[in-house]
Amino acid sequence: MISNDDTIAAIATANGEGGIAIVRISGRQALTIADQVFRCPNAPPSQRPTHTVTWGHIVEQGRTLDEGLLVVMRAPQSYTREDVVELQCHGGVVTPRQVLHTVLLAGARMAEPGEFTYRAFINGRLDLPQAEAVNDLIRSRSERAARLAVEQMDGTLSKQFKNIYRNLIALAAELEVVLDFTEEELSQDVAAKLIRQMETAGQEIGGLLTHWQDGHRIREGLSVVITGRPNVGKSSLLNALLGKERAIVSHHPGTTRDVIEESYYIEGVQLRLIDTAGLHRAEGSIEQEGIRRTYEQIQKADLYLYVLDASTPLHPEDSIHVLSLPPQRCLLILNKIDLGMNIVLSSLFNNLRKVDASSFLGIGLEEIKQEILEIISHYIHLQSMPETIISERHYHLLNRARHEIRDSLYFLKENHDELLAAHHIRNAVQNIGNIIGNDITDDILSSVFSKFCVGK
Amino acid sequence: MISNDDTIAAIATANGEGGIAIVRISGRQALTIADQVFRCPNAPPSQRPTHTVTWGHIVEQGRTLDEGLLVVMRAPQSYTREDVVELQCHGGVVTPRQVLHTVLLAGARMAEPGEFTYRAFINGRLDLPQAEAVNDLIRSRSERAARLAVEQMDGTLSKQFKNIYRNLIALAAELEVVLDFTEEELSQDVAAKLIRQMETAGQEIGGLLTHWQDGHRIREGLSVVITGRPNVGKSSLLNALLGKERAIVSHHPGTTRDVIEESYYIEGVQLRLIDTAGLHRAEGSIEQEGIRRTYEQIQKADLYLYVLDASTPLHPEDSIHVLSLPPQRCLLILNKIDLGMNIVLSSLFNNLRKVDASSFLGIGLEEIKQEILEIISHYIHLQSMPETIISERHYHLLNRARHEIRDSLYFLKENHDELLAAHHIRNAVQNIGNIIGNDITDDILSSVFSKFCVGK
Repeated sequence: MISNDDTIAAIATANGEGGIAIVRISGRQALTIADQVFRCPNAPPSQRPTHTVTWGHIVEQGRTLDEGLLVVMRAPQSYTREDVVELQCHGGVVTPRQVLHTVLLAGARMAEPGEFTYRAFINGRLDLPQAEAVNDLIRSRSERAARLAVEQMDGTLSKQFKNIYRNLIALAAELEVVLDFTEEELSQDVAAKLIRQMETAGQEIGGLLTHWQDGHRIREGLSVVITGRPNVGKSSLLNALLGKERAIVSHHPGTTRDVIEESYYIEGVQLRLIDTAGLHRAEGSIEQEGIRRTYEQIQKADLYLYVLDASTPLHPEDSIHVLSLPPQRCLLILNKIDLGMNIVLSSLFNNLRKVDASSFLGIGLEEIKQEILEIISHYIHLQSMPETIISERHYHLLNRARHEIRDSLYFLKENHDELLAAHHIRNAVQNIGNIIGNDITDDILSSVFSKFCVGK
Repeated sequence: MISNDDTIAAIATANGEGGIAIVRISGRQALTIADQVFRCPNAPPSQRPTHTVTWGHIVEQGRTLDEGLLVVMRAPQSYTREDVVELQCHGGVVTPRQVLHTVLLAGARMAEPGEFTYRAFINGRLDLPQAEAVNDLIRSRSERAARLAVEQMDGTLSKQFKNIYRNLIALAAELEVVLDFTEEELSQDVAAKLIRQMETAGQEIGGLLTHWQDGHRIREGLSVVITGRPNVGKSSLLNALLGKERAIVSHHPGTTRDVIEESYYIEGVQLRLIDTAGLHRAEGSIEQEGIRRTYEQIQKADLYLYVLDASTPLHPEDSIHVLSLPPQRCLLILNKIDLGMNIVLSSLFNNLRKVDASSFLGIGLEEIKQEILEIISHYIHLQSMPETIISERHYHLLNRARHEIRDSLYFLKENHDELLAAHHIRNAVQNIGNIIGNDITDDILSSVFSKFCVGK
């Protein structure tokens, strides 16, 4: 991040048509910049008390850009703990940019992504996991994901991390003491106590890690790939489930070329329904590219809807495709039953969930939803605990810390090498410190905040 | 519009990821609703002074949905002239909806599109053209369009309309007096004076109407259709002009099926570049549909880029297509010159503007922009006057008023029928009244405000 002496500005609301947009300014010059761009009756912006709202005109070189509201929040009672001014103007694609432009001309610098929250962090208003939760909240796609983020923003997770951090620091200190003052080998008692403490710390971290995949899925949604041979009705099924004409449907095989993805919610859980090009030996380069993308999606999916045309005999390729999918997370859709039931499934398909359907007539859609819910509740865990870790960054750092603790234990138990044991515990301390933002490098901070949107 | 006694609420910012979103509440219960959903230190929202900002938590049944800011603006010092509360929460697709939901549970009703501005109009804060300008500003796609809307919002156009309205009312009153008190025929003097006044009003209206198409184009952008036979490089040209891979390009003729439209700006003027399926005798039903859509676009366009493959001889169909386009607003692009120059143009093409280009190598793009600017400045007027009318509704009502005045003049001059003349003048008064919102029916108001976005 660049200098904190600069006054920064950005459009803080989402892009697009809306009644109101906000241009936010933070820093020492926020109020004098407001004086230049905002005309209001009586006192100018810089003489307004904190936490007040004023109606007036936003101007650029004498010309009125818009009428709007001015919100003044003086340091330290603001999000960034600096002087903050919000200009509320009309929404849309033009006016907010014009207002931002005139604010930049008046001396502000365009804010980097996440720079407002970065300042809130640097100035002690938020710790790092809380700051990261702000971004998770904005990015969340379902109520369950938002709830996780709000809990993290409240500091629940931070407390756990800080607890682990304190314990590890105590452990490291004890080891250092042992190293400094013990000439001979460690006493059995002390060694046993250190080992116990390390194992406890390792278990705590392990506990947090087991929840990671659940949290990740809650945040990102479960990916459900609709696959099968060409012209079996995959796009029609997508449209029928969504209740709208999302994908172009035709009687020609291979109509779908690109991967189409749409969100779909079952009982507060977000599914990402993914329609793909049909699996077959493709001739043209456009088609081959489509099928390459299908396989890419299949590899990443949580759940599979394999669609068969029930009105025609089974194609040998279908067996090959279906057997390559994990049976517990696969649902066979026997589609087009309105055209007759001419398919005979071999015994290979016996242990798979199946639904007879006609996306044309809307038959079987409710059963498909029920089966998806069944698969989710049996084979995919989606528990939302307060401590569910939802950041990939946290996951990797915790994982590394656990490895360091394991190494430390190894050197302590098997090798009786306290020096190396202490080294690995210090590494573990550093990893957890990186999570909560202690002794963290600028590079790591930059990479955390660069994932934010501009204006936050 | 429904009852004005209700307290209404809506998300006032654009949908999507953004740092901040605003849920706006207006009406008698705005403050008591805020008491239920917003927890803050010290005094509750309803006891806060007007035009203040407070930090706190937005809650639903004891559970924290988010932390955020509360803005209180008491009647009549607000946009709607009613009590208004703004809840600023984190942006994104989930949180603002949750906050709105809890506000609705607390007793607010979901606002209809434009209902906040409707209340501002009903309560006398804005007149109707000003209210309409609010929507135009939010919807504007270019700086010139935004400037027109801000000027209209300031009341410049309203003044002109009101002036015409007053003159017509005076005229109507004079005619009524004449009808009431004159037994015999109208005196020459009085008749001449009335006719002069009517002609002046008609000219004023005519003056406003002549600017309509300019204003309309500034607001909607100029449509520029890229057309030509298949596989001449229309999509590549679109991509080259935009500087990004917007349309899928392949060596197979007929890759583009749907109409693709992208905004493109030259010197503050918005162009809507429209890529279309190639013109030829199509076999398949998907292709025929594509070509039908191409012709639809051609009929509506302001400007044409007709693309030829310069590396192959001229195809007879090209002459037919080009001759059907208006020559002054057509630009021939001789594309693919990197593959050689084998085309020979007949004398039919002599008076057309031409550019040699290779979208593959980026040759000719600057010349194309220059030629487009030339065409715009010569054959398409884009003057932005304060009085430029930018609403289609205003256009139709002005047009009708002009017809009524013509009819009135006819009955006065040719037929000496003052009764019918007065009738038509009253109609003209009503049309102009509809523009400024005098004696306007609920139906008309509803149709005006229903075009707004929700939350404004």
